[in-house]
Amino acid sequence: MEAFSDGVFAIAITLLVLQIGVPGGSENDLLRALVAEWPSYMAYLVSFATIGAVWFGHTVITEYPHHANSTFIRLNLLLLLVVSFLPFPTRLLAEYTREAEAERVAATVYGINLLLALILVSVVWRYAIRAQLVRPDLADEDVKMLTKRLTPTLGVYVVMIIVGLFLPILGVLGYLVLALSILIPFSALWHRPNHA
Amino acid sequence: MEAFSDGVFAIAITLLVLQIGVPGGSENDLLRALVAEWPSYMAYLVSFATIGAVWFGHTVITEYPHHANSTFIRLNLLLLLVVSFLPFPTRLLAEYTREAEAERVAATVYGINLLLALILVSVVWRYAIRAQLVRPDLADEDVKMLTKRLTPTLGVYVVMIIVGLFLPILGVLGYLVLALSILIPFSALWHRPNHA
Amino acid sequence: MEAFSDGVFAIAITLLVLQIGVPGGSENDLLRALVAEWPSYMAYLVSFATIGAVWFGHTVITEYPHHANSTFIRLNLLLLLVVSFLPFPTRLLAEYTREAEAERVAATVYGINLLLALILVSVVWRYAIRAQLVRPDLADEDVKMLTKRLTPTLGVYVVMIIVGLFLPILGVLGYLVLALSILIPFSALWHRPNHA
Amino acid sequence: MEAFSDGVFAIAITLLVLQIGVPGGSENDLLRALVAEWPSYMAYLVSFATIGAVWFGHTVITEYPHHANSTFIRLNLLLLLVVSFLPFPTRLLAEYTREAEAERVAATVYGINLLLALILVSVVWRYAIRAQLVRPDLADEDVKMLTKRLTPTLGVYVVMIIVGLFLPILGVLGYLVLALSILIPFSALWHRPNHA
Repeated sequence: MEAFSDGVFAIAITLLVLQIGVPGGSENDLLRALVAEWPSYMAYLVSFATIGAVWFGHTVITEYPHHANSTFIRLNLLLLLVVSFLPFPTRLLAEYTREAEAERVAATVYGINLLLALILVSVVWRYAIRAQLVRPDLADEDVKMLTKRLTPTLGVYVVMIIVGLFLPILGVLGYLVLALSILIPFSALWHRPNHA
Repeated sequence: MEAFSDGVFAIAITLLVLQIGVPGGSENDLLRALVAEWPSYMAYLVSFATIGAVWFGHTVITEYPHHANSTFIRLNLLLLLVVSFLPFPTRLLAEYTREAEAERVAATVYGINLLLALILVSVVWRYAIRAQLVRPDLADEDVKMLTKRLTPTLGVYVVMIIVGLFLPILGVLGYLVLALSILIPFSALWHRPNHA
Repeated sequence: MEAFSDGVFAIAITLLVLQIGVPGGSENDLLRALVAEWPSYMAYLVSFATIGAVWFGHTVITEYPHHANSTFIRLNLLLLLVVSFLPFPTRLLAEYTREAEAERVAATVYGINLLLALILVSVVWRYAIRAQLVRPDLADEDVKMLTKRLTPTLGVYVVMIIVGLFLPILGVLGYLVLALSILIPFSALWHRPNHA
Repeated sequence: MEAFSDGVFAIAITLLVLQIGVPGGSENDLLRALVAEWPSYMAYLVSFATIGAVWFGHTVITEYPHHANSTFIRLNLLLLLVVSFLPFPTRLLAEYTREAEAERVAATVYGINLLLALILVSVVWRYAIRAQLVRPDLADEDVKMLTKRLTPTLGVYVVMIIVGLFLPILGVLGYLVLALSILIPFSALWHRPNHA
């Protein structure tokens, strides 16, 4: 189960690079063409950070083969469905960022995919707490902290999707900040036992 | 052996997203173009659910390195061959769903690939029972239930392929229902020990 | 080390499907176009069987972290280099099989890649025997049998490459037979302990 | 954590082959077209050797789940970000090597990506030493040797990037030599315990 999940995360994160198109043209064009492709790099970075954050949250939940139950496995497959779909809106964003009108559509689709991924991580997380599938070495305050963090984060994603309807780039930069802000508290959970 | 099988399942399920083409065009077109691409999303969903179901069935069979025998390994490679081929008919279905005549061909090829995958899971499953390679913690009634479920499912796939010759979309929706109906009893096997 | 090797084998074998082009056209064309693409399916099948055979040979060699030495690791990376290159000549073969003249070039490049993969498996195998990295549960006669089998096989690959210069399709079918003939004795090694 | 990292390395190294374009044309063209594509093969080889070297360096650092701390995990994700980006400049190099002016841009972008990957391996390595995450079976002199080797290597990458501005091909060949020169001392670490 974990090998399969880890595999899907690793593949989805590595496939992102295939979404960046290689420009065609002559010298002056190449440098300029590469710079002009900044939306591709931005989309790559945001998607990488988000999948990284989701994967990270996922590692905190330990699945014991004997404990894993049907609901947990179905929720997890749903999460993988949403995560492995992300390369598609990533390419959409990379292709359409400079086309004023289409940019809004691309950023919204992208944001909805990210939001769904985070809703599902949050659902899997809450289910794991209730079903006692969380890593036993986590302190209670860590579990509480994580739960507290995740709830407002979902709200901020909704705000960012709305912001993205007016200022798509700002919305996308917001997604980057959100992913990084998830990566930090999650990793703090790994830090603490080191000091204990 | 298991790492390799899990890897192939994880990669095949994640490659499906590459089969969805990114539309080109201007704003109004983008939203409409994305909506018009619904066959791609449907194909993605059905294939994801089916590979998920096949992988799930596969996890129930435990392979002990010392027990694994030549026939089992050959059957397993055959299953992986069929599963890793699935992204091809998935793309076929995504591309041809709205072209009235070609749709029938695409849905049939797709259905045959799904049927082959399920025949092989069923064969691997029955072989594993006979060769006592099934997870020892499974109760006898679970094994019987699974075997009973798999047999009529194969028949329903054949019916769906025939339905697909007349109403391709209906056939494809049938495949989705079938994959979901396999996911549920399989996961029930994981649920029970939790209550014991 | 093994996780990495297994990963590369699993990815290379699953990427093969991306080398099959999806035809464009209307109904009658689709069925006919799919049939006309038989070289793609053949190339997929032969490459799948060969990577399967190479992976299989590889699993017989156990790598103990403490025993693995520099030469072994370098040889193994070289093998992975050749195996992960295989999707390229596979596509070449798929695209050029019906173009009388180019077919010879494609079949020869393909055959050379297969030959290199098998030479390297054979080298890794012999090195593993000498450095005592082979699975300890293998009987001496199994090791001898495998070594004996591998040597003439390499010779038959050379013959097939030459045959392919005159009758490319015959050469490619020969590669399929060769891969299958390797899969069988290898798997016999797994069969035997079952009877002991 | 290790399964995820190993997965990303394995996928990035295997995706490289997708960056080699399959030529179109008739017989004489095919052979000539394949030969004319030497920059693709060179780029494939250099990238494969470099990812191999980075992966190799990575295996020396053992991550104990309980020891892994927040900084280490963030640094590691950064390394994976840079490594999984490599297929993009690899394609750039493959496409532009024969276009005199663009070649310089492609070789520079490529070199910067390699340099970043090696800086991050070096940072992860030094951090692992300080945080005592290094494999305990490594002798002190091995650790020192590795640290000593890595520092001048980074300098040579900078020199090669500058060389590449004037003679791009020479720069790229330099990257190949560098990757191989890293592969050898790293593997020597695996060799030694064998003789002890």
